[in-house]
Amino acid sequence: MRRDYSENVPLENPKGHEELIANTGKVITLMHGSGGLATHNLVRDIFLPFFRNQWLEPLDDSATISFNGKRLAITTDGFTVEPLFFPGGDIGSLAVHGTVNDLATAGARPLFIAASFVLEEGLAMEDLQKIVISFARACQEHSLSVVTGDTKVVPAGKGGGVYIATTGVGIVETDYVLSISKARPGDRVLLSGTIGDHGAAVLMARGHLELESEIRSDSAGLWTLVETVIKNCPHVHCLRDPTRGGLAAVLNEIARASQVSIRIREETIPIKTEVSAACEILGLDPLYLACEGKMVFVAGPEDAERALQLIRSHPLGTDAALIGEVTDEEPGLVLMETTFGGLRQIDMLMGDPLPRIC
Amino acid sequence: MRRDYSENVPLENPKGHEELIANTGKVITLMHGSGGLATHNLVRDIFLPFFRNQWLEPLDDSATISFNGKRLAITTDGFTVEPLFFPGGDIGSLAVHGTVNDLATAGARPLFIAASFVLEEGLAMEDLQKIVISFARACQEHSLSVVTGDTKVVPAGKGGGVYIATTGVGIVETDYVLSISKARPGDRVLLSGTIGDHGAAVLMARGHLELESEIRSDSAGLWTLVETVIKNCPHVHCLRDPTRGGLAAVLNEIARASQVSIRIREETIPIKTEVSAACEILGLDPLYLACEGKMVFVAGPEDAERALQLIRSHPLGTDAALIGEVTDEEPGLVLMETTFGGLRQIDMLMGDPLPRIC
Repeated sequence: MRRDYSENVPLENPKGHEELIANTGKVITLMHGSGGLATHNLVRDIFLPFFRNQWLEPLDDSATISFNGKRLAITTDGFTVEPLFFPGGDIGSLAVHGTVNDLATAGARPLFIAASFVLEEGLAMEDLQKIVISFARACQEHSLSVVTGDTKVVPAGKGGGVYIATTGVGIVETDYVLSISKARPGDRVLLSGTIGDHGAAVLMARGHLELESEIRSDSAGLWTLVETVIKNCPHVHCLRDPTRGGLAAVLNEIARASQVSIRIREETIPIKTEVSAACEILGLDPLYLACEGKMVFVAGPEDAERALQLIRSHPLGTDAALIGEVTDEEPGLVLMETTFGGLRQIDMLMGDPLPRIC
Repeated sequence: MRRDYSENVPLENPKGHEELIANTGKVITLMHGSGGLATHNLVRDIFLPFFRNQWLEPLDDSATISFNGKRLAITTDGFTVEPLFFPGGDIGSLAVHGTVNDLATAGARPLFIAASFVLEEGLAMEDLQKIVISFARACQEHSLSVVTGDTKVVPAGKGGGVYIATTGVGIVETDYVLSISKARPGDRVLLSGTIGDHGAAVLMARGHLELESEIRSDSAGLWTLVETVIKNCPHVHCLRDPTRGGLAAVLNEIARASQVSIRIREETIPIKTEVSAACEILGLDPLYLACEGKMVFVAGPEDAERALQLIRSHPLGTDAALIGEVTDEEPGLVLMETTFGGLRQIDMLMGDPLPRIC
C-alpha cells in the first residue's frame, strides 16, 4: 500500500532549465490555471517529476487506493471562483459539488469531506455565513460529513474573499476500474446535458458586460446519476466531468490518456439557446466553457443505449445525448463533424478565455 | 459509518444576528486567523452550528474514522506563510511537516497526502519549482505519497505567491484513543523542545526589522518521535503540536476540552537564548509564538518519566522537558508559576501578534 521509494526525489528537475522555461514560461500566468495546455505542461514538468507514484500517475480526477479489501477514492480541489455568489450557486455549494463529481468519476459514493478555508481580511461575516450554510446544505444533500476543517486569514489584497480547498473521500462501488485511460475504439461518448452553463453564468455575474441574462450555473452533485448508470452498465469505461477547459479539454484528456481518437458531432451537443447566444455575442466557443453539473460517459456499444436512457431518466440528465464515438483514426486527437458538414480538430487551448471559473 | 442527518442543516444560524456579530465581528480580520480566541469563536459560531457530526465535534487536529476494522486519521490544513522561504524551511516542507504532525497527534502513521496549490499570477517558476521539490523531499522523508493534487491560478494581487492546502490520511497505530479531551488530573505535561523558533524565524525573515539573527524555524515532521512514545507508553492521553497561538493556545485548548486545569512552571520551559532575546526586544511573549516541530504530550504519571526519556533520545527531542501537571484546581484554566515565584494565568489571546505564520 505504500509508495515504493526506490529512487530518491531528484534534487533538480531532470529537464534542463532552458527546456523547462520554454515549456512553462518564467512566471505563473493566468493561462496556467486554465485547465488547457498550459496547465497540462505545468503539472507535467513542474510537479510530476517529483511526485510520481502509482496512484497519482493516471491523473484521473480521483486516486483509487486499496485499503483492507475495499477501494477508497480520494480527490482534492481548490476553488477560487469570482464572484463568490452567482446565479445557481456560490463558492460553498460549488466546492461540494465539484468534490462529489470528482469522486463520482471513480465510481465512488461520497463519504467524507475535509475543507480548508482561506479567508481574506475584510470579508463580510454575513457572506461567510451564507457560504458556510450553502456548503453544509450541499453536504447534507449528498450525505457527506465534514470530518475536519481549517481556516486561515490572509491580509486584504492577498486573497479573493474566500478560497476553499476540499478533499473528498469516497468508497468505490464498481468492481471494475473506471479511468480516463480506458476508452476503446468503438465506445460511445455520452454527455449528461447542456454545455457552458456555469462558465456563462459566472461571466455574466461578474457584471463587466452590459448584458441581462437568465443563465444559471448548472452546479450540481451527480453521484446518484452516476450510481444508477454504473450499477446497471458494466461496460462503462470512463467518466469525466467537464469543468475547467470545458468539454473540449475533457475529451482531449481522454483521447490522450487512452491513445484513441474521439469523433463528435456538433449538432448533437446539447446547449441552451441563451448560452449559445451569449457565446456568439462574446466570441467564446462553448466547447471550452466550464460545466459544473455535467458528466461525460464513455461506454462500450453494448451498454451505450441503456446508459443514455438511465441518464435521461434522472432529473439532472434530461438533456443527455449521444455526442460521438471513440475511433482509432488519429490517436490523441478530438475531431468534430461541424453542423456545416466539415471536420474540425478540437484542440486543447493554451489558456482559457475565462479565468477563475471554479 | 455515515453521518446521522436526523436534523437538517438549519437555514439560519441558531444564534441571533446581533449575538453572532457581537461574538465574531462584522468582518473577517487578521485576528480570526490567529489561532486564539477570535479563531475559536469564528469556528464555534460560524462553522460548527452547520457541520456538527461525531467526527468533527472533538475538534482534534485529526478526525479518526473506523473503516473496515482499522482506524484512519484524516486532517486538513491551509498554509499561507509569508515569506514563502525562511531559514529552516519554506512553505512546501512546512505544509508536509504540519500534516505529518497533525496526523501524529492522533497516533497515526502518515500514508497519503493530497495537495491543492493556489498560485498567484507573477510567481517565478523557479520559486514554485523549489517549493515543489521541498514538498516532495519532505514527503519522501516520511514515506508519504502524494496521491492527488490540484493547481489553481489567481490574478496578481489576489494571492500570496503560493497557498497550499493539504489533506493527510494516516493509519492509527494505538489501540486506545488519543484526544485533547482525555487529560486527567495528575497527568504530566511534556514538551518535546524549545518554543517559538518558527514564529521568531518567520518574523525575522520578513525583513521589516533591522535585526540580524541566527534563528531557524524548527519545522520538522515528528511521526517517528511520536511513534516511539506511543508504542512504549500506553498511558499517554493526548498530543497536540503548538503551532498557531503557540504553547499557550494548545494548553488552553486541552484545559477546555478536558475540563481540567494545567499548571506549568516557567523556568522549565525550554527556549533558545536568541529566541528569548528577540522576544524581549520585540515585546513578544514566546508562549504565544508558533512552533512547527514540537509536540506537547499529556501522560499519566506512570508513563511520564519513560516518555520523557524516549523523547529525549530522539534527535528531534533532545531539549524535551517536563513542564507541568494537570490539576483540578481551576477547570478550563492554564496557570504558570513564574520564575519570580508568582502565579500567572496564561490566557488565550483574542488575536495574535504575528499573522500568517503557517
